[in-house]
Amino acid sequence: MSSARLIYLPLGGAGEIGMNCYVYGYGPQDQERLIVVDLGVTFPDMDGTPGVDLILPDVAWLEARKTQIEAVFITHAHEDHLGAVGHLFERLGAPTVYARAFTAHLARQKLGEYGFSDKVVKTVSAWPETVKAGPFTVGFLPISHSIPESSGLVIDSPDGRIVHTGDFKLDRAPIVGEAWDPELWGAVAAHGVKALVCDSTNVFSPEPGRSESSIGGDIETLIADARGMVVATTFASNVARLKTLAEAGQRAGRSVCLMGRAMRRMIEAAVATGVLKDFPSVISPEDVGHLPRENVMLLVTGSQGERRAASAQLANGKYQGVSLKDGDLFLFSSKTIPGNERGVIRIMNQLSEMGVDVVDDNSGRYHVSGHANRPDLDQMHKLMKPQTVVPMHGEHRHLRAHTRLAAENGCQSILAVNGMIVNLSGNAPSVAGYVETGRTYLDGSVQVGALDGIVRDRLRMALNGHIMVSVILDEDNEPLGEPWCEIRGLAETGRSKAPLVDVLEEDLDQYMRRAGAKVLADDDKLEDGLKKITRQSTQDEIGKKPEVTVVISRLS
Amino acid sequence: MSSARLIYLPLGGAGEIGMNCYVYGYGPQDQERLIVVDLGVTFPDMDGTPGVDLILPDVAWLEARKTQIEAVFITHAHEDHLGAVGHLFERLGAPTVYARAFTAHLARQKLGEYGFSDKVVKTVSAWPETVKAGPFTVGFLPISHSIPESSGLVIDSPDGRIVHTGDFKLDRAPIVGEAWDPELWGAVAAHGVKALVCDSTNVFSPEPGRSESSIGGDIETLIADARGMVVATTFASNVARLKTLAEAGQRAGRSVCLMGRAMRRMIEAAVATGVLKDFPSVISPEDVGHLPRENVMLLVTGSQGERRAASAQLANGKYQGVSLKDGDLFLFSSKTIPGNERGVIRIMNQLSEMGVDVVDDNSGRYHVSGHANRPDLDQMHKLMKPQTVVPMHGEHRHLRAHTRLAAENGCQSILAVNGMIVNLSGNAPSVAGYVETGRTYLDGSVQVGALDGIVRDRLRMALNGHIMVSVILDEDNEPLGEPWCEIRGLAETGRSKAPLVDVLEEDLDQYMRRAGAKVLADDDKLEDGLKKITRQSTQDEIGKKPEVTVVISRLS
Repeated sequence: MSSARLIYLPLGGAGEIGMNCYVYGYGPQDQERLIVVDLGVTFPDMDGTPGVDLILPDVAWLEARKTQIEAVFITHAHEDHLGAVGHLFERLGAPTVYARAFTAHLARQKLGEYGFSDKVVKTVSAWPETVKAGPFTVGFLPISHSIPESSGLVIDSPDGRIVHTGDFKLDRAPIVGEAWDPELWGAVAAHGVKALVCDSTNVFSPEPGRSESSIGGDIETLIADARGMVVATTFASNVARLKTLAEAGQRAGRSVCLMGRAMRRMIEAAVATGVLKDFPSVISPEDVGHLPRENVMLLVTGSQGERRAASAQLANGKYQGVSLKDGDLFLFSSKTIPGNERGVIRIMNQLSEMGVDVVDDNSGRYHVSGHANRPDLDQMHKLMKPQTVVPMHGEHRHLRAHTRLAAENGCQSILAVNGMIVNLSGNAPSVAGYVETGRTYLDGSVQVGALDGIVRDRLRMALNGHIMVSVILDEDNEPLGEPWCEIRGLAETGRSKAPLVDVLEEDLDQYMRRAGAKVLADDDKLEDGLKKITRQSTQDEIGKKPEVTVVISRLS
Repeated sequence: MSSARLIYLPLGGAGEIGMNCYVYGYGPQDQERLIVVDLGVTFPDMDGTPGVDLILPDVAWLEARKTQIEAVFITHAHEDHLGAVGHLFERLGAPTVYARAFTAHLARQKLGEYGFSDKVVKTVSAWPETVKAGPFTVGFLPISHSIPESSGLVIDSPDGRIVHTGDFKLDRAPIVGEAWDPELWGAVAAHGVKALVCDSTNVFSPEPGRSESSIGGDIETLIADARGMVVATTFASNVARLKTLAEAGQRAGRSVCLMGRAMRRMIEAAVATGVLKDFPSVISPEDVGHLPRENVMLLVTGSQGERRAASAQLANGKYQGVSLKDGDLFLFSSKTIPGNERGVIRIMNQLSEMGVDVVDDNSGRYHVSGHANRPDLDQMHKLMKPQTVVPMHGEHRHLRAHTRLAAENGCQSILAVNGMIVNLSGNAPSVAGYVETGRTYLDGSVQVGALDGIVRDRLRMALNGHIMVSVILDEDNEPLGEPWCEIRGLAETGRSKAPLVDVLEEDLDQYMRRAGAKVLADDDKLEDGLKKITRQSTQDEIGKKPEVTVVISRLS
């Protein structure tokens, strides 16, 4: 099999932060046996994807090759790595999904929502246990991150060893889960690493990353000094942080209550799989009202300002019978992800109006990142001494900066973005081709392509409003009655002070009267004419060019 | 006139950053003579105001009292203080507008767009010159900010002196415009200040503010070291920064080119009114191509990622014949305003794809804020020793933190939000009532109320899609032909794999056949029934509940 090659193909996560999906293949060109690493989602926003439920990687390329897929490996249980597994599983030919216990537990829940059996997910123990997947042998190498049991992958192929870091930080005291173990990682690299496919998220952070355990003291002081109820929010999946917060509450004589489904689910998964021990006992929301405020601490979902999460509901007034008031403290033990600022600030101001003191991470004392900063990436490169660094998990600017760091460390590197097939065989990586990629929207219960125009049409209606024009013609193509307009999302009156709908109907009626038999007999011509009049008259009246839908009914 | 009172009423800017509009009144209740300080705008976004052009304060209260308005005073020329003057001038009864020269120059442009004469704006010199406006005497007190000729207002009333700070920082070397002069401000306060109405923007910034002149060195070093073309963006109105950037370019042997209408207009206004002298001579965009890249520096609009500004256009490929390439440098000499992150990051990644090196203000070396930080506010309180501090220009959380700072400094304070009438007469401020306030949208060429439902309808179409249903009935209320559907912004097929439009038309046809004569004769009942079927069938097919518009045509 001299023509066999080792390829890397990111379908999501390389050129963006989110929606991770990486493919490795080995074999003769176009017959490679494939493994998929992570199947994540990214989240929609009003700016570009209003009404969309979730954004998934476009896996059309994989779907067309589903018989070549040996397995799926999930590095950790964050939504941007695991969230699409249920939605895409069938399209990929229902491959076996491998993960460590905590991740597997949550993967089974996701697949269960689609009716798939628990058995499709296989639990794998940490390295040195490995799984054989066609030409690949894959092991889960523990590493610290902001969720339990995050793992890098050791991917052995006939052409050498790849280390796929997954998301990571170098934390020797991560509170929950395995600490960063440079000896373990160094041993894996001892006989050479062909490619280090490496997290790039924090490449612009110049200081070494801080340990999860470094913020416990400040959190404890803050909570000990609080007078009223204390509420803290962080990512539901940051089990270590939840433990730190809950224990600080407990030490301050507070009973802890978890609010928000995602948070309870994470704690349950962590307890069920044994990664979390000694979490303070919790009370139910119904019990909160029976305790003095100074004896309660709520841990709530919604650190990113999500409208339906517990934090937003509390800021709106009441959630599960609990409401906040003057003198309470609300801690954002989290960083606001770019793009979520407005939602978070809205909540902060609502809390301010209630007299609640809001503390966020501006001071840097109540949150640490889960990703490796620049000096940590540096350390990783130097420890693993790979032939090639392949930056992943970053926007283009992160990937680009990461390739430069690799060069400074004497490594080859390649800036591979979504859709680029990289040939890792031989002594230097090369671009072996490009695959059409993009995004798939979960919109209600169906998957639609980002370029299908469906969401574009929604955006246009949001920007321009929508006018429906209805005309009826008889058997002889003569107008029956007058044109009828319905207006959505536009001012009712404009320049002429008459209702816009009256102005339009008058103008359209005149157009119909003037239109020749040829136009009246031709749906396309008539529609064009009616649209043009509608847009022009609306522009004249209110200064906007609306979307227009014309319905021509012909009686026959 | 023993019943006369001195009132303060914010209509915009108190509870938000943007859209500043403050009213002061003196006289018997409901007959107060009024002055208006600032008429600003705030900017729309896709999240809540798609398609809206600008957001203005709701001045209905003022409009109903326009005969009581003595004058409008504009503290400085930022859009959030000046931007609404043209749009609202007529509704306020065309009052005289007072401003200093640079601000007045730009105010005349805004009013000119609505056809108003230059004469409606009166230019006022700096304090000690004053203007009489009914019971008030008003003077413009120079202070440093991030735009030339920013001024506080000294507002003397029969009940005492108010100092309205406007936006400010304490900068003793602001490059362009007047330096912070504590002696001048202290003298104004010497005989007592009843109320200090004070900027709150940076109350959460714990370090003293830095001078505009403190960043020149770093900017000069950065540009001197650049190899390719240099592009820098900042707020167009930050004339001092433009000067610093242009001079750094000039010293590095580069010709400077201004790109973006707003930037050229600001420089022209600054030169015309004498606030800017010695700006390096500039070249036109057409000349850029004739020079080696290393001899060019572009100063461009679009520091906030605005889609139509020069920075976004350059990132998209080409602007006015100029394109960027590998080895060029792009400096964001600016801070990203919360909510604008996505747009800015998009541009950074596009530039990264071109190989352009992007430098932003993460390091704190290439930008300083134009607002007073917490220690500066502290200094202002202590210098002015007001009876009462009234925080303004901030979200609720800023205003609240600012009242606490005032208390620490031994001042009374009152947290006044938009719509709250504060009685400043007597020894302590009190709430004298509430006025309905809100936001007015400039939508195309018309002004609509934020609560009119127009933009809400657009948001609903963006989230849910839109289906139009058309049915025709004859003289006997019998359906003529079959129902017709048009779908916008929804998936074309769903669960049953048949086109959604076919499924709907079939379901609606069955409904029409089943419907009794009573329903068919009643537009409301028929519309309700058709909507319900449409929503239910769409939900079943694609999992979304669309907006539905029904057109019932009856032949008669």
